[in-house]
Amino acid sequence: MPKVATQASVSLDGFIAGPENGGFEYLFAWCRAGDVEVPTASGRSYKVAEASADYVRDMIEGYGALVVGRNQFDGMDGWGGQHPMRVQVFVVTHSVPEGWAPESDEFVFVTEGGVKAAIDQAKAVAGDKNVGVGPGIVAREALDEGLLDEVRLDLVPYMLGDGVRFVDTLGSAPRKFGEPRVIQGKKVTHLIYPVETNE
Amino acid sequence: MPKVATQASVSLDGFIAGPENGGFEYLFAWCRAGDVEVPTASGRSYKVAEASADYVRDMIEGYGALVVGRNQFDGMDGWGGQHPMRVQVFVVTHSVPEGWAPESDEFVFVTEGGVKAAIDQAKAVAGDKNVGVGPGIVAREALDEGLLDEVRLDLVPYMLGDGVRFVDTLGSAPRKFGEPRVIQGKKVTHLIYPVETNE
Repeated sequence: MPKVATQASVSLDGFIAGPENGGFEYLFAWCRAGDVEVPTASGRSYKVAEASADYVRDMIEGYGALVVGRNQFDGMDGWGGQHPMRVQVFVVTHSVPEGWAPESDEFVFVTEGGVKAAIDQAKAVAGDKNVGVGPGIVAREALDEGLLDEVRLDLVPYMLGDGVRFVDTLGSAPRKFGEPRVIQGKKVTHLIYPVETNE
Repeated sequence: MPKVATQASVSLDGFIAGPENGGFEYLFAWCRAGDVEVPTASGRSYKVAEASADYVRDMIEGYGALVVGRNQFDGMDGWGGQHPMRVQVFVVTHSVPEGWAPESDEFVFVTEGGVKAAIDQAKAVAGDKNVGVGPGIVAREALDEGLLDEVRLDLVPYMLGDGVRFVDTLGSAPRKFGEPRVIQGKKVTHLIYPVETNE
């Protein structure tokens, strides 16, 4: 059964980006911290601890489509026109970015129906694979609307002091999760929480 | 070698208290979630999962003195005049609370020298036991001043949406920690991070 999951590298003080949209060298240090090479579709590789390798493989092979917010899309400059995971990306946005003329159809701009519409479209494309949902506002809305099955935290041993919070001001809080699966890697603790229906 | 450690139950979205100083039924659900009874000096007991029992015992027996901020002291109404751990508590504050006339000398109000002075006094009292430092501003200052050896997160499977952050706006960020010791309990993941000196 495919899952809808949000995943993020999160600092010990709860940030997915540091001040001035920085801190990524700390948040993603774990992706280069080990000896086991896990190749991605883009040709670049992760180098992670043995304990993380299956988790990363499942992540790379497991996602069939992604849903991201406009902030993340803009912050990553549209991944230069092609997402490194080489899957179709559904961008939740009010309007299609000006001047965006992709050579491929890898990016779909969902301007109506919000996160739910984007996840529905992504599910149709993903088939029996998982749908990944970007962090931040999109993850918050997906949680609030009961559209997420899993939250995957890649908790990293750094504090960033300030920045962008993983999930900001959840409307459906307090929200309960199930017991996590925990994988201790190198410079990262993977914590996979099943989302439970709020009572 | 005794340690200076800060410890807090923290929600998945990074809060040690929810909106309007609430949410403690979620943050401390793990203290009553298991079958193993661990008695405290106050006569009340923890009831935790087997996996958490040693961690809790070490916590109860390990701390020889505590340092807390005035916010925590006020928020807990001075623990009714006696801290449940039955150790001396050093309260960092600008002034001794009005009308405070303790029958015991369990509470010491440190009005000069800030967190460092309070930790020094607590160390002298704790002897070969650990000093516990409360979360929030006190933990932030202790981290900023390089006075902490360990950060202990009791990560709980709830999101609170908003509230009081574990460590707010760290001055010495980004700050690096060592690899954590991880203990998966019931309704809690204990993560014990050694503090590393910033490069």
